[in-house]
Amino acid sequence: MKSKFIVIEGLEGAGKTTARDVVVNTLRSLGIEDIVFTREPGGTPLAEKLRDLFKRGVGDDKPTVKAEVLMLYAARVQLVETVILPALARGAWVVGDRHDLSSQAYQGGGRGIDADLMRSLRDTVLGDFRPDLTLYLDLPPAMGLQRASARGELDRIEKEALPFFERTRERYLSLVAEDSRIKTIDASQSLDKVTTLIHQTLLQWFEAQRQLEGGQ
Amino acid sequence: MKSKFIVIEGLEGAGKTTARDVVVNTLRSLGIEDIVFTREPGGTPLAEKLRDLFKRGVGDDKPTVKAEVLMLYAARVQLVETVILPALARGAWVVGDRHDLSSQAYQGGGRGIDADLMRSLRDTVLGDFRPDLTLYLDLPPAMGLQRASARGELDRIEKEALPFFERTRERYLSLVAEDSRIKTIDASQSLDKVTTLIHQTLLQWFEAQRQLEGGQ
Repeated sequence: MKSKFIVIEGLEGAGKTTARDVVVNTLRSLGIEDIVFTREPGGTPLAEKLRDLFKRGVGDDKPTVKAEVLMLYAARVQLVETVILPALARGAWVVGDRHDLSSQAYQGGGRGIDADLMRSLRDTVLGDFRPDLTLYLDLPPAMGLQRASARGELDRIEKEALPFFERTRERYLSLVAEDSRIKTIDASQSLDKVTTLIHQTLLQWFEAQRQLEGGQ
Repeated sequence: MKSKFIVIEGLEGAGKTTARDVVVNTLRSLGIEDIVFTREPGGTPLAEKLRDLFKRGVGDDKPTVKAEVLMLYAARVQLVETVILPALARGAWVVGDRHDLSSQAYQGGGRGIDADLMRSLRDTVLGDFRPDLTLYLDLPPAMGLQRASARGELDRIEKEALPFFERTRERYLSLVAEDSRIKTIDASQSLDKVTTLIHQTLLQWFEAQRQLEGGQ
């Protein structure tokens, strides 16, 4: 099977780190050993710097909404062009903690940047590059924030008020409904159930891919 | 007269710093005292950080062409929204060392990013915000580079080969031809002549503006 780009998406506290471990263990059980991890924003030295600027700004100079989205896309295209595409080309699988869907949901939904503008920016910057599979971990924002705050200090994004995350989730859900390459995982369940669900979803998808690509 | 945004543009070594001094002295001679300076990329703490990342990258991780242009636009929109527009709103004049025309010329012309894409990015990010007057200092790239290298170490952009700057100048010239708000100054002449030309060009433009705005 050709190597694939799998992305884990969801609100703060949805359990993306746990999901990543499940994805990796499942891929390994399928005989896939060469796996590259990415996280966004970030994933290259330059993109990590942009992530830091995006999260903190410089002193009182916080990015405006438009500056924020442009920095995110700068970091993303740097990651795609210098890490993800080369990895896929050499046959590695790539597992990403967030990708473009986050910008569409957080900046488009949460911050209210015009959806057409967000799509146009995505298409301009990324062309038709998309993840082969996205696992969207869905849960009520209040539950996610409770989990995230239990982990420690909240950053600039995580300090947003609840309505911001409600709008973000709403946009996630409407984008998920438009794209069959995105699978929704109910992340409000117990850890055991979520783990099983991710494992099964990935196995089913893998089997479907195998058949599509001629049983290799 | 309403306050204005005046931009100085041109290749490395074209004499932008000298031109700025002439512009400021001329504006002061016209009774304008509240003048804000900007430089691009940069001009806010966040935008200066982006400038630094744009010029140096992080270690070996240099921005790809697309990352570069997105970082430039992030820095620009931060500057426009947090510095230039508030300054103009309070009645200050703004004198900028470079603005959007540089991206159109360097990234569009020099780096060969599709011109439609560059225009679409500009319009998406900046809407119809444009400088009231741009002074484009034109000279042959070889002459400019000679002057710039005499000043000291060349940065990542300044180290580009001559054909890059030839393409950049060509794009400058074609954009200048399309826009009556851009005035070309022949910067290959002696310093005295360039100074006089900038002074006269600015005075003529100012007089035309005064008449347009009803002789205030």
